Amino acid sequence: MTADSSPVPPSVGRGLPVLDKLSLTSRIALVATLLMSALGIVLDFGIHVDKNVVFVVSAIAILGLAWVVGLSTERLGSLTGPRVGGILNATFGNIAELIIAFFALQRGLIEVVQASLTGSIIGNLLLVMGAAVLVGGLRNGVQTFSAKIAVSNAALLVLALIGLFVPAIFALTSADRSTGTVTEESVLVAIVLIIGYGLSLIFQFTHPAETLGGHGEPEGHAGPAWTAKVAIFVLVAAAALLAVLSEILVSVIEPFIATFGLSAFFVGVVIIPTIGNLAEHLVAVQLAAKDKMEFALAVTFGSSLQVALFVAPVLVLLGLVVNQPMTLVFTPLEIAAVAAAVGISSLIAIDGESNWLEGALLMLVYAILAVSFFEFVGPL
Amino acid sequence: MTADSSPVPPSVGRGLPVLDKLSLTSRIALVATLLMSALGIVLDFGIHVDKNVVFVVSAIAILGLAWVVGLSTERLGSLTGPRVGGILNATFGNIAELIIAFFALQRGLIEVVQASLTGSIIGNLLLVMGAAVLVGGLRNGVQTFSAKIAVSNAALLVLALIGLFVPAIFALTSADRSTGTVTEESVLVAIVLIIGYGLSLIFQFTHPAETLGGHGEPEGHAGPAWTAKVAIFVLVAAAALLAVLSEILVSVIEPFIATFGLSAFFVGVVIIPTIGNLAEHLVAVQLAAKDKMEFALAVTFGSSLQVALFVAPVLVLLGLVVNQPMTLVFTPLEIAAVAAAVGISSLIAIDGESNWLEGALLMLVYAILAVSFFEFVGPL
Amino acid sequence: MTADSSPVPPSVGRGLPVLDKLSLTSRIALVATLLMSALGIVLDFGIHVDKNVVFVVSAIAILGLAWVVGLSTERLGSLTGPRVGGILNATFGNIAELIIAFFALQRGLIEVVQASLTGSIIGNLLLVMGAAVLVGGLRNGVQTFSAKIAVSNAALLVLALIGLFVPAIFALTSADRSTGTVTEESVLVAIVLIIGYGLSLIFQFTHPAETLGGHGEPEGHAGPAWTAKVAIFVLVAAAALLAVLSEILVSVIEPFIATFGLSAFFVGVVIIPTIGNLAEHLVAVQLAAKDKMEFALAVTFGSSLQVALFVAPVLVLLGLVVNQPMTLVFTPLEIAAVAAAVGISSLIAIDGESNWLEGALLMLVYAILAVSFFEFVGPL
Repeated sequence: MTADSSPVPPSVGRGLPVLDKLSLTSRIALVATLLMSALGIVLDFGIHVDKNVVFVVSAIAILGLAWVVGLSTERLGSLTGPRVGGILNATFGNIAELIIAFFALQRGLIEVVQASLTGSIIGNLLLVMGAAVLVGGLRNGVQTFSAKIAVSNAALLVLALIGLFVPAIFALTSADRSTGTVTEESVLVAIVLIIGYGLSLIFQFTHPAETLGGHGEPEGHAGPAWTAKVAIFVLVAAAALLAVLSEILVSVIEPFIATFGLSAFFVGVVIIPTIGNLAEHLVAVQLAAKDKMEFALAVTFGSSLQVALFVAPVLVLLGLVVNQPMTLVFTPLEIAAVAAAVGISSLIAIDGESNWLEGALLMLVYAILAVSFFEFVGPL
Repeated sequence: MTADSSPVPPSVGRGLPVLDKLSLTSRIALVATLLMSALGIVLDFGIHVDKNVVFVVSAIAILGLAWVVGLSTERLGSLTGPRVGGILNATFGNIAELIIAFFALQRGLIEVVQASLTGSIIGNLLLVMGAAVLVGGLRNGVQTFSAKIAVSNAALLVLALIGLFVPAIFALTSADRSTGTVTEESVLVAIVLIIGYGLSLIFQFTHPAETLGGHGEPEGHAGPAWTAKVAIFVLVAAAALLAVLSEILVSVIEPFIATFGLSAFFVGVVIIPTIGNLAEHLVAVQLAAKDKMEFALAVTFGSSLQVALFVAPVLVLLGLVVNQPMTLVFTPLEIAAVAAAVGISSLIAIDGESNWLEGALLMLVYAILAVSFFEFVGPL
Repeated sequence: MTADSSPVPPSVGRGLPVLDKLSLTSRIALVATLLMSALGIVLDFGIHVDKNVVFVVSAIAILGLAWVVGLSTERLGSLTGPRVGGILNATFGNIAELIIAFFALQRGLIEVVQASLTGSIIGNLLLVMGAAVLVGGLRNGVQTFSAKIAVSNAALLVLALIGLFVPAIFALTSADRSTGTVTEESVLVAIVLIIGYGLSLIFQFTHPAETLGGHGEPEGHAGPAWTAKVAIFVLVAAAALLAVLSEILVSVIEPFIATFGLSAFFVGVVIIPTIGNLAEHLVAVQLAAKDKMEFALAVTFGSSLQVALFVAPVLVLLGLVVNQPMTLVFTPLEIAAVAAAVGISSLIAIDGESNWLEGALLMLVYAILAVSFFEFVGPL
């Protein structure tokens, strides 16, 4: 995580083991996150506060809590070794997004949830990869890297996405399809995708050297980490707070959409993934700045892979549980955008070479898509 | 072929030159094939036998006969040298599929024939390549290989498929198109594809070292092969039996479809290619197990290339002859499935590295597609 | 340019500095171009001449003038050094096409203009690259080359094309879209594309060694070039003549289409790009013949990149100026054709190896598309 690289003040925070071994910036971020979380919860009870203020406060709190979850997962991982650590990362890497999407699903905001899945993948492959390639290129000039790890991850991602999009392709090309059939097929595909996820965990467990989990911070951290007890406590507490704040956030999505005249689609594609993943994404940019492009690309591919193999099918199955059947029938626009994002990011990975121009163009394509979603897709 | 690697019993089969130099397993397979062929022909005359029994018996016989055709082509090839051998492989490699499709075409089962073309390509690139990568990965760990041959074959395949799909893309995107225009365009494209096939044979003949025919068994076989006379006799006899059994199989497809409530599409996409190609496909898996991934991939790409450049256009032209005009207008579902299969298999080839997880995911994608075709596409 | 490689006769053309340092073939071509230009202008005033004769004469004149523009840009570039030279090439590389398209736009032939954009890209990636790979392969056998430059250019091209096609994808997949919204979105995308073009010029200026402009002739020319004054005079004069002849050509497109029963689509996709780019394309074939495949591929990718990032958005903005609003909403057929062309040409670049068979198949795919456009798309 970013903040760990700043020097650790020697004698601060002795009393609290959570603050121990954290840099000053990390401590400030941690305290700010707790304050925003508390504020969000308090505001939620104050009925006369503007809903949009609640939205913004809870969004900032979730952003911070997602970072805390990542931090504690990583520290727990460094205690358990790379095998278990990889599985922890793979499980908790997209937990914030999963929790937000779950509460949105429960409220029947199915369009938002579906859009958040594709938005997360597009954001990863265009915006995050673009920022990483741009920052890396500006700081290090033309970057060359071993294409192996990145292309290997890209291949797995393409496989997962093809599986994910089968129901949509069937729905698009078949003549008449009842809702029942489509849901049935989505559930079937979800089960197969989770089997694929299980296999990928087994592979990761048996080949720790050749893969990277969702976070994939490759270098050792200076200084000892937390004890297991502290790390587990922080993880559980942050995840619990995350759930509370996510429910608050989701409860004010609809007034937020109405106030600003947004489309559900735009909120799902752009805003939700940004809130859930921003902290995690900074890792990729930071790795690129350190000229470790193969890891930066692996992180963005790995995060998208988790969305396709874990978050999406889990949401389909949870949809059955909360009686809000969600299908995997994405719109052609989403399929086209994801296919384009995967194609171009794979090509950059195959290349084994990146420069700031590629990064800037990746971000421009994301900007074109985001503005188009904002301007030209009708409101809810 | 698989069975050749088992030790040849020294003093068996002296009397019959066909059995000479064959391993015990191969001899058993050969005899079983002949018995099933005879049984299929006999059952076809027995009018009171269940049609589905006839279907299963003739399917097994065809499976065996396709293997015998492959075996005799290969032995003939080892007598003629790699140049002529490559052309023999390229011509007879998909002969079983061509013969079955021809009889299906003659009976007007055009949907089955079209689906068998895409099914053959999808089966090659997802199921066969998946099995090869999975078995290879489980036996040899992460396999690295020179990407050159595989990517070169993938590039040719993509080119051929783009040509093959032009009529479908035109039909999908043009407003109103009469059947006459579509057929005319399909015939035109078929002629161009066959020109491409002719050029690829010339290339293969002049650059034998850089290409692999449909079979492409790269290593020398222990022990001398058959004489030319024996090989030609076996080839002709097996092809003739194949034709008889294919006609029998096709004659009972419709009752088979009706009994099990299948769609013509499912039979074409999944069952027909499996019957026609299973023996051939074992070669790819076996090559992967021997850690010769570049050849395994080349075999699967090469086999799909033959379908696109030879089997498909020949069937369009034969359709004119038997007055059953078949177009190259595939469904969007087929185009999407083939495009996905080609994309992902190319990416694995570019990678130059494969592992069992990729193989397992390839097979899962095939499973999702096959189950979707089975469950969710309406019956004939 | 081609003709420069023939020996320069020592004492000819002393009087005219323009002819100085030009080979005999180049001198003949220059004089022929001037004669055809004069003839075209004269015929345009002669009202009783057949319109189709005017079309053919002005087409030939434009072909020659585009070559003269390329020649003077290159000579000017060799005086200014690679940085400014690269930007000159990038600006004037597709000037002929831009000028023809502008006059067609002014006359409201919007379908022709849109088709000429995709036709230029398809022609570059299938016909020109195919000819280069075929000629290179026949002359030099299997050609191996460093994939770096070619793949890097391919990645930029894919990015640019994704941006270019966003409005079409939105228009295709949205339910009801008014003309106003589509135009607004096209203008927005055009502005973003031009920003991308500006960034690519900055990149080219700061990394001259790693990129190639539209022309990208990589070797030094024997003999000194023109003086700056001569080069600028020739460039301006040729561009001015180009504008005059383009207006004449466009004024007789409609009778030409009517006489031969062509579709506007065919004229835009096949004829206009051939007239505007033929001279430039010979460079790619010539580079391939000299076994410099990485440069040949970079030229074809670079030329397509200019169409996507410069020619297309400039035409959208000029459309506003001349009150002929042109959108970037291409037909599905065009998107499919361009996607296929980009996919296959990228795969050949990734391969790092090419042979004549790949070249022949690329040209066959172009032939299938061109004949399909000719035969099966209805007249205007």
